[in-house]
Amino acid sequence: MVSVDEAQRLITEHVAPLGVEAINVLHDAADGRVLAEDVYGIEPLPDVPKAAVDGYAVRSADGDSPRRVIAEVTAGATPGLRVEAGTAVRIMTGAPVPDGADAVIAVEHTEERESILIVRYTLRAGENIHTIGQDIAAGQRVLARGTTLGVAEIGLLATVGRARAMVYRRPVVAVLATGDEVYEPDGAVFPGGVRDSNRYALMAAAREAGCLALSLGIARDDVNVQRAAILEALDRADVLLTSGGVSMGTRDLIKPLLAELGTVHFGRIAFKPGKPTTFATIERPASVRSLPLLAFGLPGYPVSSLVSFEVFVRPALRRLQGDALPERPRVRVTLRDLIRPSPDRPEYQRAIVSWEDGRLVARSTGRQGSSRLLSMLGANALLIVPAGTEPYLAGAELDALMTGPLAPPGMSAL
Amino acid sequence: MVSVDEAQRLITEHVAPLGVEAINVLHDAADGRVLAEDVYGIEPLPDVPKAAVDGYAVRSADGDSPRRVIAEVTAGATPGLRVEAGTAVRIMTGAPVPDGADAVIAVEHTEERESILIVRYTLRAGENIHTIGQDIAAGQRVLARGTTLGVAEIGLLATVGRARAMVYRRPVVAVLATGDEVYEPDGAVFPGGVRDSNRYALMAAAREAGCLALSLGIARDDVNVQRAAILEALDRADVLLTSGGVSMGTRDLIKPLLAELGTVHFGRIAFKPGKPTTFATIERPASVRSLPLLAFGLPGYPVSSLVSFEVFVRPALRRLQGDALPERPRVRVTLRDLIRPSPDRPEYQRAIVSWEDGRLVARSTGRQGSSRLLSMLGANALLIVPAGTEPYLAGAELDALMTGPLAPPGMSAL
Repeated sequence: MVSVDEAQRLITEHVAPLGVEAINVLHDAADGRVLAEDVYGIEPLPDVPKAAVDGYAVRSADGDSPRRVIAEVTAGATPGLRVEAGTAVRIMTGAPVPDGADAVIAVEHTEERESILIVRYTLRAGENIHTIGQDIAAGQRVLARGTTLGVAEIGLLATVGRARAMVYRRPVVAVLATGDEVYEPDGAVFPGGVRDSNRYALMAAAREAGCLALSLGIARDDVNVQRAAILEALDRADVLLTSGGVSMGTRDLIKPLLAELGTVHFGRIAFKPGKPTTFATIERPASVRSLPLLAFGLPGYPVSSLVSFEVFVRPALRRLQGDALPERPRVRVTLRDLIRPSPDRPEYQRAIVSWEDGRLVARSTGRQGSSRLLSMLGANALLIVPAGTEPYLAGAELDALMTGPLAPPGMSAL
Repeated sequence: MVSVDEAQRLITEHVAPLGVEAINVLHDAADGRVLAEDVYGIEPLPDVPKAAVDGYAVRSADGDSPRRVIAEVTAGATPGLRVEAGTAVRIMTGAPVPDGADAVIAVEHTEERESILIVRYTLRAGENIHTIGQDIAAGQRVLARGTTLGVAEIGLLATVGRARAMVYRRPVVAVLATGDEVYEPDGAVFPGGVRDSNRYALMAAAREAGCLALSLGIARDDVNVQRAAILEALDRADVLLTSGGVSMGTRDLIKPLLAELGTVHFGRIAFKPGKPTTFATIERPASVRSLPLLAFGLPGYPVSSLVSFEVFVRPALRRLQGDALPERPRVRVTLRDLIRPSPDRPEYQRAIVSWEDGRLVARSTGRQGSSRLLSMLGANALLIVPAGTEPYLAGAELDALMTGPLAPPGMSAL
């Protein structure tokens, strides 16, 4: 049995960013991809001095005396003219400032009558001129490798003219459910059967983590059927997630199969919920995939599989994509409810965290049973509850991993 | 000129959830969709009493005396047998508990030799039995209308056998760039020109808000070209976002066009950056779309357009999808840097917020110019800086909208 830290260390040791690929950020959905290169601006931005407001390009040395308006220049135009003493050029925001002008006066401080500009304002040289390179210097690095592309990053790539960018490949995550009792959610009900929620939830979790999810279906408790499914993952996926079959029963076939086909790095974690979580690597020819298959044997209980995914699998999936920030944020929260620890293992309890009365406050999602998927509903945090026997009272503080955005104040479980 | 609150109120007045549609949560990518119905479990979960651990189903009244092991029952099996006094049935986690048994003893507290079970533990009745309806009662509501589907929600839908679910339609958001100076990011450079970053960033922002983004390209500063583009949006989209052309220049055509085609509800907001942000509705036959076109004229400066999107457009896009929680979380942060307010308008400054030393700490992303898209980079919060003349010193507190996950402690701008 390994500790949580040791389990995370063993996984991280076997993870490296996958290969890179070029995408077109203008036409592909680049959102959520991780940059595999540093990106630089080539030209300065702006590339020429520009008007920062709508108004008039003037010479500041002319002071507040009237000027003759000799032309108009709009954004997108190339001014082939020069502002001489006593003249002005009507100019729009973003338009290139004509030679000779050293300031732009905003239209609201002026009046123009019969091409004579009256100025009601004392100008300073340089005023309202957006200077060359003010926003991005020539050759400046604007994005760093390892950055996840969001709205601003996509805007910046377009700004510096980088339609094509190198990003890390998205991991292919194969998900296999196991168990004779497990059936498709839209299949016919049978007594004692369990609808397969884990495979669909884990596929959604893999997608949320930026991966391509691949379903391997449900394998019954037959060693040949399950071996064939693992071999399919070896051929088609970067990562395999199985659900069920890792406990101590006679039909728990996943651990022995992983040991037969590869190397099991750990098979039990001092952790709740999800003690039987297993991690193995299976070697394969480099021609198939650059890394060995990373195989995670997750427990069959819905909460155990998802919490184990969050704590052990998700950071690995982000590292495979080269994410410079693969971990969830960690905070300190004040409890609103009594929390009972597990006597023998640290427990990751589901909670709803919001900002209230000047601090981060956590409410429990109720009974924390491994089979009670409702305990995940609305949860945006995992409370890290150390092993022990004394309950934590309302008002006590605990560390928590934030797995989603903060909830509105007062939000509690359904 | 309206206040931020008034602008938000005027927008919200014109927004209602769009229609609903059925999706298959097993085969469609349901992630991020908003549920348009309450969802109930039909059967209880579990549907029969089940073993919560691997071990032996026994009668607790037999105490710690040895038992004869008469059979094995695995998950997915239907036990056609009965545990009589002095007997036990080997049982796997999740398997139905046979009649007659009232407890399950975990395998680690037992020893089995030649079909005789030795028990090293004092059992209580009911122990390790997962009772009917313990996780979900028959007929219990498990998901509420207005919930955004994530990992747990997709798992719950599968758990209660709801492959098909009603969700709100995703808004179609058309994005139009305007301006003679604007060119495609992969086009040939021309002096004084500006690469169109806004359209690509706004499309990414619309996707992040759960919408389908539609590009209407770049319209030059010609009233007929821009009118045709708006009419295309009227035909094809729920929402139109334009970028540029809302200022006071002679080529600012968007506001007059929106007034010509529909009703302008406001054309200036006491807000920085993004004062000229304009909101209009344009009526159309109900046969085209259920709601009038919501048209947002956003400023041309990259930061102004994205901050205005965040503060005014995004909540509307979430409300169109029926999201019960359309707003970003609001928190109070402690400043690490000096922040200068705008004298005349509340300013939404970009910042990086992390959890440090027991509180939420905000670092500025540096110069806050409307054209400096780098000020958005890495930002996960908008500081709400009231209008004023006195700077906020490091250590002062301000409200902030959280627009992304918390950053690691110490994280600062590139």
